[in-house]
Amino acid sequence: MTVIEFPTSDKATGDELREQVREAARRAREAAAGLAQATRGAKDALLHDMADELVKRVPEVLAANERDVAAARESGMTEALIDRLSLSAGRVEAMADGLRTVAGLPDPVGEVLRGQVLPNGVQLRQVRVPLGVVGIVYEGRPNVTVDAAGLTLKSGNAVLLRGSSSAENSNTALVAVLREVVVKHGLPADSVQLLPCHDRASVQHLITARGLVDVVIPRGGAGLISAVVEQSTVPAIETGVGNCHVYVDSAADIDMALRVLLNSKARRPSVCNAAESFLVHADIAEEFLPRAISELREAGVTVHGDERVVAVGGSHVVPVTEDDWDTEYLSLDIAAKVVDSMPGAVEHIREHGSGHTEAIVTNDVRAAQQFTAQVDAAAVMVNASTAFTDGGEFGMGAEIGISTQKLHARGPMGLPELTSTKWIAYGDGHVRAGSAPAKPES
Amino acid sequence: MTVIEFPTSDKATGDELREQVREAARRAREAAAGLAQATRGAKDALLHDMADELVKRVPEVLAANERDVAAARESGMTEALIDRLSLSAGRVEAMADGLRTVAGLPDPVGEVLRGQVLPNGVQLRQVRVPLGVVGIVYEGRPNVTVDAAGLTLKSGNAVLLRGSSSAENSNTALVAVLREVVVKHGLPADSVQLLPCHDRASVQHLITARGLVDVVIPRGGAGLISAVVEQSTVPAIETGVGNCHVYVDSAADIDMALRVLLNSKARRPSVCNAAESFLVHADIAEEFLPRAISELREAGVTVHGDERVVAVGGSHVVPVTEDDWDTEYLSLDIAAKVVDSMPGAVEHIREHGSGHTEAIVTNDVRAAQQFTAQVDAAAVMVNASTAFTDGGEFGMGAEIGISTQKLHARGPMGLPELTSTKWIAYGDGHVRAGSAPAKPES
Repeated sequence: MTVIEFPTSDKATGDELREQVREAARRAREAAAGLAQATRGAKDALLHDMADELVKRVPEVLAANERDVAAARESGMTEALIDRLSLSAGRVEAMADGLRTVAGLPDPVGEVLRGQVLPNGVQLRQVRVPLGVVGIVYEGRPNVTVDAAGLTLKSGNAVLLRGSSSAENSNTALVAVLREVVVKHGLPADSVQLLPCHDRASVQHLITARGLVDVVIPRGGAGLISAVVEQSTVPAIETGVGNCHVYVDSAADIDMALRVLLNSKARRPSVCNAAESFLVHADIAEEFLPRAISELREAGVTVHGDERVVAVGGSHVVPVTEDDWDTEYLSLDIAAKVVDSMPGAVEHIREHGSGHTEAIVTNDVRAAQQFTAQVDAAAVMVNASTAFTDGGEFGMGAEIGISTQKLHARGPMGLPELTSTKWIAYGDGHVRAGSAPAKPES
Repeated sequence: MTVIEFPTSDKATGDELREQVREAARRAREAAAGLAQATRGAKDALLHDMADELVKRVPEVLAANERDVAAARESGMTEALIDRLSLSAGRVEAMADGLRTVAGLPDPVGEVLRGQVLPNGVQLRQVRVPLGVVGIVYEGRPNVTVDAAGLTLKSGNAVLLRGSSSAENSNTALVAVLREVVVKHGLPADSVQLLPCHDRASVQHLITARGLVDVVIPRGGAGLISAVVEQSTVPAIETGVGNCHVYVDSAADIDMALRVLLNSKARRPSVCNAAESFLVHADIAEEFLPRAISELREAGVTVHGDERVVAVGGSHVVPVTEDDWDTEYLSLDIAAKVVDSMPGAVEHIREHGSGHTEAIVTNDVRAAQQFTAQVDAAAVMVNASTAFTDGGEFGMGAEIGISTQKLHARGPMGLPELTSTKWIAYGDGHVRAGSAPAKPES
C-alpha cells in the first residue's frame, strides 16, 4: 500500500491556503450550531428541494462536467476513471433520488439512547446530537459530493467537501446548487462548502484543523485512506479497504459454497466487499476445488493458488505469491489456499484480513458459531455472500462509507454513525456529597 | 496548555525500545484473541481472585511502593504528588473493592444491539465485541494500574499499561500479582502488561503501533492528553480536560444557584468536573453576586471577575485576565462574568468551554431547554452540580475516564465504551443481485 505524503506547498501560498481552509472550518462551525437545531421537517424539506433543484439544473451541471471530462481526456486519464468522473442526466437523477431516500430516513438527532432516574432523583438521559463539522476527502466521483452533503445535513452536521481537482467544475456546479437551496430554506449557506482542490496541502490543512473539524472521513483508495488516517490530528474514520475471505468448511454444501464464492468475487470485483481470497478445508478440497476453479475461470476470474490448489488446478491456476494474501485485487483475481482446519482459516484471516467482511460456508452449527466468534471483522457472514456488507442491504437506506476500524463505528456507516451523544441531567438543586479522601482521585 | 514533544532516544536504544513495545503489543494481540472468548463467569471469577490476592499481598505491594516514595522524596517531588503516589493498606483494599465492583457489572461483550431479518431472509444482528488491545498512558497514581486492568479485562480486552517511572516499583508489584492470577485462571498472562516507563519514547512507540494497538487512552494532565492525542496514529480518546461553567440564569432560585455553584467549585477542585467559571445574568447579578462572592470566599475560593463583578465585589475580587477564561485552575479559583442574556452565556461557553460539563440554574423551562440544546458538551446539567459527571454517579459502576471528544464515546466511559461491535449475518446460501451500472460505485 502506497502511503501518500501530502506535500506542503511553498511557504507563502501554503500559509494562505491554510488560513483559507481554517476560515472555511470556522464558518462551518458557526453553521453547524444553527444546523444542529433544525427540525427533521426542515431538513427533509431541504433535501427534497435540493433533489428537485438538481434535476432542474441538469444542463448546467452537465456543462460543467463536460469541461472536467474534456480536461481529463486531454491529460490522458484512463477510460475507467473517466467513466467514474462522467455525469449524465440519469446519474444526476440518481443523486437526486439518493437525497430523497435520505429525506425518508428517520432523523437520528434527538433520539434518546439511554435514560434513568438516578438514586438521588436526578433525571438523566443520553441523546444523539450531530458531530458538528464533518470533513470528507474523496476522489473523482462527483456523486459523492451530493451523497455526502445529503447524509451530513440530514444528521445535522456541516460538511467540508474536499473532492478531486479532476472534478472541480462538476463539484463547484453541484455545490452551488446545494448552497442556493440551503439559503432559500433560511439555513446557513456554509453548512455545505467545497474546499480548494488544486493543492494536496488543502487535505493536510483539513485533517490537522483539530478543534475546528470534528471528524474526517476519507473515501477512496487505500493510499488516500491510509494517508488521511495516519497524518490526521482530527479524529478520522478508516473506511473501505476490504481484503475479504470466503472460507469453505468441511461441512459445506458444495453447490452453496460455489454460489456464495462466485457472487462474493465476481458480482462486482471493484468494490470493497468483494472477496479477494478463498480458503477451503482439506477434507473437502478435492471435491470442491475442481468445480471452483472451473466456475471461476468461466466467470473470467484468475485463481492464484498455493501448491495444494495448483496440484488440483494445474495450468489453470497461477502460483500464489506471499504478497497475494495481502492484496486487495479489486479485479477478477482471487487467491486460494487449502487449510487443514477451521482454526487454520481463522489464523490466516487474522494475519491477512483487513477487518471488513469474512464469510464461512458450512452446515455445521458449531463451526459457524466458532467462526463468527473468533473472526475479528466488521461483518461475518454464514452461508451468505460478502457482498451483503452494505448500508442499503443492511436496511440503513444509505451509507457514507464502510468503517474498518473499531472505534465509533464499524461496518456500514449510516445516519446514526454521523452523530455523537450528549448527557442531559435535570436536578432540583442537587449537589454531590464529598468523597472519602482515602481513595485517590483519578 | 503545554504540548509535550516525546523525544526520540538515541538511535540504538530507540530501535530496541521500539521493538520491545511492539513485541509487547503483538503478545497482547494474541492474548486478546483468547480473552475475547472468555465467558462472564470466567472474567468475574478472575477479578474476584485478583482482588483477594491483592489484599493478601499488601505487604509486598507496600514495600515496593515505599521504594518509589523514598525515591520521589529524594528527587524533591511535591507532597501533593507524593500523596498521589503513596499506597496504604486502605488504598490497596480500595483497589480490590474496585475490582469487585467491576466484577458485579454486566458484561458488555455479546450484547445484541440491533437485529432484524432482512427482506431477503438473511438474519442480521449487531453484537458488542471487545476492542482488542487497549493502551493506557497515565501518570503517578498506582491505583490506575488496577482500575484500568479490571475494566479492560472485564470488557474482554488485553491492556498495555504505560505508567509513570515514579511509580515503577509499585506498578511492577501490582502487575506481577495480577498476571499471576491471570495465569492461574488459564488465561494468557499477556492480557496485562506493563510497558517500560523510563524513556518517554515508549509512549511514542505505543501510540504509533497502528495495527497492533486498537485504542490509546491517556489519563492525566492536559499536556499528556494533548500530546498523546495529537501524535497518536492509533485511534486515541481524548479525556478529562474540564473547563466547566455554571450559568446562573435570570430566573434562577438564588439559594439553589449558590448551592450548585459552591458544590461545583469547591467540593473537589482538583477533578475535571469541577467548575472553573461562573456566568451570571445581568438581571440577577446585583442580588446574586454579593452572596456568591462572600460564600465563595468563606469556602476559600478566589474569585477572578470581569469589571462588572469587580464593581460589586471590590477588593474581594481579583480582576480577571483573558487567559483566565481558558484556564482549568484545578484549584480554589474561579473566573466570573456578568452576561446580558442566555445566548451570551452560550456564546461564552462555545468560545471557552472544553466540551466536558456545563450547568444552568434556572426555573424557566424554556431557558433550560434552550441551554441544554445549544450548549455543546458531553454533559449539560439543569439545576444540578457539574460534579455529577462521573461514571459512578451515572450508574456505570466505574469509569476508565471521561471523554471530551465526540467520536466513539462522550462523557464517562464505562465498560460498554471499551467495546466495538460486529455484524453477524446468517443466510442460507444467499447471494446478492447485481446492481445497475448506471449508478457509479462509491
